[in-house]
Amino acid sequence: MMHGKAKGVILGVLMALVAACARGRATPVAGLPAEAQTVIRERGLSPEDVVAALRTYMPGGKYDEYVMFSSGGHSGQVLVIGIPSMRLLKVIGVFTPEPWQGYGFGEKGTLEVLAEGFARGKPLLWGDTHHPALSETEGEYDGQFLFINDKANARLAVIDLRDFETKQIVKNPNAISDHGGGFVTPNTEYVVEGPQYAAPIGWEYAPLDQYKDKYRGLLTFWAFDRQKGRVDLDRSFQIELPPYWQDLCDAGKKVSYGWVFCNSINTEMATGGIEEGNPPFEAGTAKNEMDYLHIINWKKAEELIRAGKYEVINGIKVIRLETAAREGVLFFAPEPKSPHGVDVAPGGEYIVVGGKLDPHVTIYSFEKIQKAIAAGNFERDPFGVPVLRFEDVKEAQVELGLGPLHTVFDDKGYAYTSLFLDSAVAKWSLGGPYRKDGAEPWKLVEKLPVHYNIGHIAAPEGDTVSPDGKYVVALNKWSVDRFQPVGPLHPQNFQLIDISGGKMRLLYDMPIGIGEPHYAQIIKADKLKPFLVYPEIGWNAVKMAKDPNATEAGRERVEVREEGGRRVVEIWMTAVRSHFKPERVKVRKGDHVIWHITNIERARDATHGFALGGYNINLSLEPGETATIEFDADQSGTFPFYCTEFCSALHLEMMGYFLVEP
Amino acid sequence: MMHGKAKGVILGVLMALVAACARGRATPVAGLPAEAQTVIRERGLSPEDVVAALRTYMPGGKYDEYVMFSSGGHSGQVLVIGIPSMRLLKVIGVFTPEPWQGYGFGEKGTLEVLAEGFARGKPLLWGDTHHPALSETEGEYDGQFLFINDKANARLAVIDLRDFETKQIVKNPNAISDHGGGFVTPNTEYVVEGPQYAAPIGWEYAPLDQYKDKYRGLLTFWAFDRQKGRVDLDRSFQIELPPYWQDLCDAGKKVSYGWVFCNSINTEMATGGIEEGNPPFEAGTAKNEMDYLHIINWKKAEELIRAGKYEVINGIKVIRLETAAREGVLFFAPEPKSPHGVDVAPGGEYIVVGGKLDPHVTIYSFEKIQKAIAAGNFERDPFGVPVLRFEDVKEAQVELGLGPLHTVFDDKGYAYTSLFLDSAVAKWSLGGPYRKDGAEPWKLVEKLPVHYNIGHIAAPEGDTVSPDGKYVVALNKWSVDRFQPVGPLHPQNFQLIDISGGKMRLLYDMPIGIGEPHYAQIIKADKLKPFLVYPEIGWNAVKMAKDPNATEAGRERVEVREEGGRRVVEIWMTAVRSHFKPERVKVRKGDHVIWHITNIERARDATHGFALGGYNINLSLEPGETATIEFDADQSGTFPFYCTEFCSALHLEMMGYFLVEP
Repeated sequence: MMHGKAKGVILGVLMALVAACARGRATPVAGLPAEAQTVIRERGLSPEDVVAALRTYMPGGKYDEYVMFSSGGHSGQVLVIGIPSMRLLKVIGVFTPEPWQGYGFGEKGTLEVLAEGFARGKPLLWGDTHHPALSETEGEYDGQFLFINDKANARLAVIDLRDFETKQIVKNPNAISDHGGGFVTPNTEYVVEGPQYAAPIGWEYAPLDQYKDKYRGLLTFWAFDRQKGRVDLDRSFQIELPPYWQDLCDAGKKVSYGWVFCNSINTEMATGGIEEGNPPFEAGTAKNEMDYLHIINWKKAEELIRAGKYEVINGIKVIRLETAAREGVLFFAPEPKSPHGVDVAPGGEYIVVGGKLDPHVTIYSFEKIQKAIAAGNFERDPFGVPVLRFEDVKEAQVELGLGPLHTVFDDKGYAYTSLFLDSAVAKWSLGGPYRKDGAEPWKLVEKLPVHYNIGHIAAPEGDTVSPDGKYVVALNKWSVDRFQPVGPLHPQNFQLIDISGGKMRLLYDMPIGIGEPHYAQIIKADKLKPFLVYPEIGWNAVKMAKDPNATEAGRERVEVREEGGRRVVEIWMTAVRSHFKPERVKVRKGDHVIWHITNIERARDATHGFALGGYNINLSLEPGETATIEFDADQSGTFPFYCTEFCSALHLEMMGYFLVEP
Repeated sequence: MMHGKAKGVILGVLMALVAACARGRATPVAGLPAEAQTVIRERGLSPEDVVAALRTYMPGGKYDEYVMFSSGGHSGQVLVIGIPSMRLLKVIGVFTPEPWQGYGFGEKGTLEVLAEGFARGKPLLWGDTHHPALSETEGEYDGQFLFINDKANARLAVIDLRDFETKQIVKNPNAISDHGGGFVTPNTEYVVEGPQYAAPIGWEYAPLDQYKDKYRGLLTFWAFDRQKGRVDLDRSFQIELPPYWQDLCDAGKKVSYGWVFCNSINTEMATGGIEEGNPPFEAGTAKNEMDYLHIINWKKAEELIRAGKYEVINGIKVIRLETAAREGVLFFAPEPKSPHGVDVAPGGEYIVVGGKLDPHVTIYSFEKIQKAIAAGNFERDPFGVPVLRFEDVKEAQVELGLGPLHTVFDDKGYAYTSLFLDSAVAKWSLGGPYRKDGAEPWKLVEKLPVHYNIGHIAAPEGDTVSPDGKYVVALNKWSVDRFQPVGPLHPQNFQLIDISGGKMRLLYDMPIGIGEPHYAQIIKADKLKPFLVYPEIGWNAVKMAKDPNATEAGRERVEVREEGGRRVVEIWMTAVRSHFKPERVKVRKGDHVIWHITNIERARDATHGFALGGYNINLSLEPGETATIEFDADQSGTFPFYCTEFCSALHLEMMGYFLVEP
């Protein structure tokens, strides 16, 4: 028996306890509804799944922390993806015409951008995009421009990140194939386009038995004019290289500023011919245990250009191979074996080469390279290029596993390398100044399986002077059984991996059923400051300036004139919710039509499309934009034009008739 | 003071309580790691966010329950999306060439598919896809084919769901614009293509003052040959309609089998001309309080065709308006006001019309329509078409809010209508046989705000005879501030909504930065049985049969012959990891080249690409596929060809040289 008072105390304690306990149960994890348990059970989610779901889900209206710009591979486009939600925010039309964004379907400015990329006047309307490169200032992404190459035809595109649209495509006049580009130098002085398959300069004809004499690699330095937002051909130059199939490149930074590094995969100079009993390329290019890391002094190359030590070939300055080799622009160092990625560490001290057919990454010291060059300790390759001694320039080798390809970095002194054959990401420790946590340097730390056949790898700001850590994205080439089947052509698979803790953890599988991406770069979202609408009404989106044919409301008109023996009809039209003005455009068969349309909206997202049936025309007119189409009215008839962006409740009624009298 | 025993008892109770409480805290939700709480706190997730994350996250390697086929709008393509994860699984090239899938970039079969869709010989290389339609058997999706229209040029495409590739594009020879199609009849007897903007038949020239006499709508019934997987032009027919701008259509089913319903938005026969002081189309088409629901008896139309009561115009049988009106094929019923969607309830008893400029959905009874027709209670419109009395055929009207557009159904007797102006989804109760839960029929139940400007709405099997319930997807036209800004052209926003509980709940925002989708259909994933690889080596993916130029390993060859005064070089090549055979292809400038390539792989996902630099060619050769390119070697030089799908560690070495001697 207890005293009343004691009872009361106990009761109080018990009640408090029960209440606390009940509160604990009602909200077992603060903010987590009981319903969560039901969902977890019903869907069979593992604890890892639950954490991954919570880490990647983006609540409605909240923004991703990072934006990834990924090559779209042979779609020819660029993919814009939010991280961590792994949602595809946009596909940017680059080398392939894309009608949703009105890119290459009648709009004169975009047709001119595409035409600039034609080769010998022959239309090239797709590309094989490989390596996107964000513009940099002092080695940091600055969020202003994005560059991307077309491997199939050796071209480079410039995308302005104010409106995420392609502004320029330059065709490399001397190369027909590139791979190791774009890469930028640390202040975007140049966008570097590395070669791939050797061919005679200007891709002229030469039989394969003249391979050594006539075939060449070409490293292109496209000078970038940030003010104009355009590549400046006059200040650009190329360096002639031996026909070694140069692969990826990266620019030196900080201590290695002024240098560029490229690797190579066919120092054998194999020329294939399996059908003639020769070893196929896959065997012929893989005989040598060592290929050559190309070490290029671009500051020295600039000096040679200033000194006139170049030839102009097809309109661009070229430093010939002999000059480059003699004048200290080009050096080689042995690298094992048919490597893929060459990646400069954040501080520029080390160059990491993924061996591909060798289980190591090989780390070169920039300091040692400089010493070896200064000491003159080299032999020369058959083209006279100085070859440094491997032992003189090697800092370390780390055995990671099968098929190391490409490396990115975090903020804690670790590197992450994709292993294609192992289908894994390898985390390993850097040495030297990066080793502050007492971990053993140059050592494999962990391997995480990915699904499947990883090519490149990307990390937030992971190839800049200050990587963020947090995530890596595995850009896997095969998905096999990973997604709901959608036919024999499978999506690729981007896997988001959390690297913020001690261990790497798989968070998300994102199918890419729209192209085969190669490289990607990931920028802090808040570095991007795009236009929400164009700055003023009448904006020319290609020129990024007010268009002379901008039309104000009330100033719409149609003019007819004779010009060069034909009738020219010129229309100045406005578009606003929910009508075009004029709505009736009448011409005669054979007339030349010049048609300017200005979207006079100022509201965000108030885009109008403009489709003209039967004439293969579609425009996307974002708020403020002026666009021009120009064509011959070569078929008579009655053709509706209409708005293709669902702009209002009366969007379907936003139309007009283009009447072509026979 | 307490007794020792009492103390002991109390201590025991307390300890038990504390232990129970602690257990509750240690594993507050079974299987939920403590880390989840940290993530929830760090990311500021609400309880609703947590549930949504857990409902939509798809663990690596697990498959989505549903697959959504969405129009890609004016991208010209079809989007394939997993539900509930809202991941984009694939983009199918339809009206626009797409190089990743080798669609229209040299491959002869796909070029022929695209060319079939040209108009008057003029290339049309984009489309404005609106309404995807899955093939049906007895009103259920059967997972075999997908059809989709091109509004801009009045075309219809056929996609085979064995490989998710486009097999046929038919150009409507008499219409230049369509909107209400494709829709299928319940056994895919026909794919119905409804019109949009009226134009003279064959889109010949006629001035707008002849609008009433010369301009027409055309409803097309494309007969589908399921065996051949192709539209059969010979059995197809059209019905001439007044120039009322017919909009969406839907096929009757079950009790209304044999009928099709379309609405219209310009019974005013407005012809615009704001620039001439006329009311713009947006006003001119919105004067009437009522437009006309078109009620079409396609079984009767078939009889007329059999009886020869048609004219052949531009190669297709056309039932003239006068015949259709006289012979009981075409009836009208008044419908308020410039409506958008017309949607037949699962059992076929009701036809639901979204008023667009009227706050109601109007529900018509098929039984009442039949009675009114039988009773002959009608007047006639200016074209002689019988107009039934509104009160005779109306079952109910439900006031939902501003801008009702389009309606889908669940499995519990409820309908879901998109409200464009309200930016909301309205859930409302059906009546009649659907009302088994005692709820009041024909009544608004709930409205859920969406973000923003919803156009269509889709639900799992939601327009078939047996909707699944569970979800609806809001296909929102504007995203405004919903996503990380990516320039003035904003993504659209698909919102996944859970309808499995009593209340609708928003689960997920999916940006669509690749086109402006209109309608979508959602099929149970297990109904799809696509090929994982092609059935045998040497498969022609367009013809879906063995290709006569299939090449076995060891049978590769090059033949040179004279033909029509020029040299023809024909190549039979194989592709397998990691080489092409032959690797050297030598021709002379001016030669005509016919090039067959067979991917002899049998492994899933072992796709090879084939790019030919400088010649605008890229193929995607899935395992087993044979493809052919044919072109003139019109420029001399040295052109690498290479594999564009990263197939193996030696993928970069999978190349060859195409040598064109001057």
